[in-house]
Amino acid sequence: MEQNVFYETYGFLEDDLDQLLEEKKYQELRGKINTLNEADIADYMQRLPDEQMLLVFRMLHKDLAADAFACLPVEEQQVLIDDFTDVELGDVLEDLHVDDVVDMLEELPAGVVRRVLKNTRPEQRSLINQFLQYPENSAGSIMTPETLAVNRTMTVDDSFNYIRANGEDCEMFYVLYVIDEVRHLEGVVTVKDLLMHPYEALIGDIMETKVVKCTTTDDQEDVAELLNRYDFLSLPVVDHENRLVGMVTVDDAVDVMTEETTEDIEKMAAIIPTEHSYFRTSIWDTWKSRTPWLLFLMISATFTSIIINTYESALAAWVALTGFIPMLMDTSGNAGSQSTVTVIRALSLGDIQFSQIFKVIWKEMRVAFACGLTLAVVNFFKIYLVDGMLFHNPQITFQIDLVVCVTLFFTVLFAQFVGCILPMLADRIHLDPAVMASPLITTIVDASSLLIYFQVASRLLGL
Amino acid sequence: MEQNVFYETYGFLEDDLDQLLEEKKYQELRGKINTLNEADIADYMQRLPDEQMLLVFRMLHKDLAADAFACLPVEEQQVLIDDFTDVELGDVLEDLHVDDVVDMLEELPAGVVRRVLKNTRPEQRSLINQFLQYPENSAGSIMTPETLAVNRTMTVDDSFNYIRANGEDCEMFYVLYVIDEVRHLEGVVTVKDLLMHPYEALIGDIMETKVVKCTTTDDQEDVAELLNRYDFLSLPVVDHENRLVGMVTVDDAVDVMTEETTEDIEKMAAIIPTEHSYFRTSIWDTWKSRTPWLLFLMISATFTSIIINTYESALAAWVALTGFIPMLMDTSGNAGSQSTVTVIRALSLGDIQFSQIFKVIWKEMRVAFACGLTLAVVNFFKIYLVDGMLFHNPQITFQIDLVVCVTLFFTVLFAQFVGCILPMLADRIHLDPAVMASPLITTIVDASSLLIYFQVASRLLGL
Repeated sequence: MEQNVFYETYGFLEDDLDQLLEEKKYQELRGKINTLNEADIADYMQRLPDEQMLLVFRMLHKDLAADAFACLPVEEQQVLIDDFTDVELGDVLEDLHVDDVVDMLEELPAGVVRRVLKNTRPEQRSLINQFLQYPENSAGSIMTPETLAVNRTMTVDDSFNYIRANGEDCEMFYVLYVIDEVRHLEGVVTVKDLLMHPYEALIGDIMETKVVKCTTTDDQEDVAELLNRYDFLSLPVVDHENRLVGMVTVDDAVDVMTEETTEDIEKMAAIIPTEHSYFRTSIWDTWKSRTPWLLFLMISATFTSIIINTYESALAAWVALTGFIPMLMDTSGNAGSQSTVTVIRALSLGDIQFSQIFKVIWKEMRVAFACGLTLAVVNFFKIYLVDGMLFHNPQITFQIDLVVCVTLFFTVLFAQFVGCILPMLADRIHLDPAVMASPLITTIVDASSLLIYFQVASRLLGL
Repeated sequence: MEQNVFYETYGFLEDDLDQLLEEKKYQELRGKINTLNEADIADYMQRLPDEQMLLVFRMLHKDLAADAFACLPVEEQQVLIDDFTDVELGDVLEDLHVDDVVDMLEELPAGVVRRVLKNTRPEQRSLINQFLQYPENSAGSIMTPETLAVNRTMTVDDSFNYIRANGEDCEMFYVLYVIDEVRHLEGVVTVKDLLMHPYEALIGDIMETKVVKCTTTDDQEDVAELLNRYDFLSLPVVDHENRLVGMVTVDDAVDVMTEETTEDIEKMAAIIPTEHSYFRTSIWDTWKSRTPWLLFLMISATFTSIIINTYESALAAWVALTGFIPMLMDTSGNAGSQSTVTVIRALSLGDIQFSQIFKVIWKEMRVAFACGLTLAVVNFFKIYLVDGMLFHNPQITFQIDLVVCVTLFFTVLFAQFVGCILPMLADRIHLDPAVMASPLITTIVDASSLLIYFQVASRLLGL
């Protein structure tokens, strides 16, 4: 963020806080820090050394402490937990939402997990254990179990009373789910609906019965798209018997979208996605996320070596051909990436589907034709003028120029063809299209550009 | 979406609708279609030929018609507008939110824009004209002017009455902004706050006065991040005199994030971002978005040709060296992309800042050392075993093998170094780091790998 709006709002306080901390004016610091938003407090705490972080944390009011704790990365959470007494730990856990505890437990070392579980109330512990069993990246793993649920025989007035009594700590206050006596989901009613109807109206009469919902095992990405599609504030999660077990809120969906996008971008750059943010990923984990694809692509490049070695004598006869190999490989690689990345993104946004593959190919081929032609023509004159007229390179003949440009045209055509079909085929066979992105396409396109190059050269130069 | 939750919910209806339409059972179709969500209706309409789309649209109830209209892409909106009578057009416009009208007008041809403006009420028209003047991608351009605003002397009960009277068509029903008599923003109060306080409580006593807000000219991306950071449902937009002019809701923020991510991904693949979805972008526009970077990168590759031509005699003496050029270029290009893309994403998520550049370099260098060493060692044995033992290629001597692997090590180191600093420098000078991604890095890294290669070869082979 270049022009950070957040800093305009709260940022100026940071230096104040630092100064108070340094001058040990703890009373004043306590006053200031407790007026901040939990996200800002967590931000501030993260930048402090462990000891000061603990000090600041202990200044927070009980409710705010739990909220700020939930906003911290798991590494800082562990520092705090390690220093907590069992009573302190119990207090914080008491006020955390179950989904936040679960998120944390999934990343903490086993020893700490045991200590955390020991200090939760039995009911909370059994909920947590249930959550820990949902598959990774499922709706169940991101949902919150704390929903507001009413039944159809209640009135609007009853519902308001219920909300006043139970809503304080609920993540989404404005959506109530209607369930029967065995928690089957029957409908949904919003606070807006309640406000727009008289106090004596029955929930059963005003609820929406066509509920868009998901099940615990649905993929989190699908759930996020669903929330986004309908602009809902929350989506109910049911088990396989249609019993309400929780809900996913819009802010969870936003986090999922950000996480999935990062994964896609990493995959497109031949990186195996990692869980943590930049500095939190260790050197070793970063190495593990980068090396496998580099090794695979390096070894795949053996094909290009074999091709070049095969045409060694041709290259020896027409030395000028070698100089254009990098340009041809780069340009076709870039052209291929463009179409792959476009198709991958369109697939992930739902703009195109596998059934439209021929429509996609038809479009890509026309674009590739236009791009290839432009590049070939520009390059023809560039070689003629720069290499021929400017550098007076005697080896760059009209024929060589022609070979390079004809090759350029066909490689761009081929690269954008491969670039558009590979991600679609990957999608079809349930592979993530993102792994088909630039690096893999480049490797495939490299080998094929060389083959095209030597084929064209053989024809035109009579090798 | 592979396992589409949406289809589980409504998808089965689609075939029904098609059948009813085909059998001209319009009465029944009207009944069914009017029970659907506007997003689903828009989805269904888009797949129909123009004439049937118009037919279906005219079956919709007035309110639902406007909502579904707002969900349609601008091309379909234009088809409908072209067929509307002025009365029909006025009716639809009447029910649209101003921000939706503005979004549409920004993309319609001038003739249609005139007709639309002619058919809006004078007050709406003046609002629209004001909106059209906000800079593109600013908070002003995405906000909705319809907010619920109360003042500090009102009671909770007054506020509920105000909401009941004015909230029906408001995009965000649950957040009320508190303003003084000249619309200066003084505070914010949520429906939750209202419900949690007695009816006679004064807004001035229960409102939150530290309001996180943005101004009309703030960048939409910053606004989206702010909403996401604090998990707010909406953010007030004020003018430069702190007067409330509108709000941005969480669903707008999600759309902004998706749009900005697509732009980032496109830039990383050397594509100039386009406005429309895949099939809605014409061949000509796609060509315009792809060719400039391809041309630029193609011409930049001239440097690699010059380098190769300079070392022509060395290549002629040690022909085996040529075969490894593509592998070296690809591998260092991939290594560079990995670190660039990682840094770009970390910058855009706010995980790293320019001030941390040395910390980033230190991390990247250690990772690069590990990656480079792994690749070099693996490649050394691969060449020794495959090219030496398997293919008995007499030109691949121990010395050549050593040259290639030493080069590989240094190019990976160099590529990840350049890959991490370029986006950070770009960010520093207020360029979008994304344009520094793979294709540009590849071009820079290609030339430098060749230089390193020939330097290493000169030393070790004594060229």
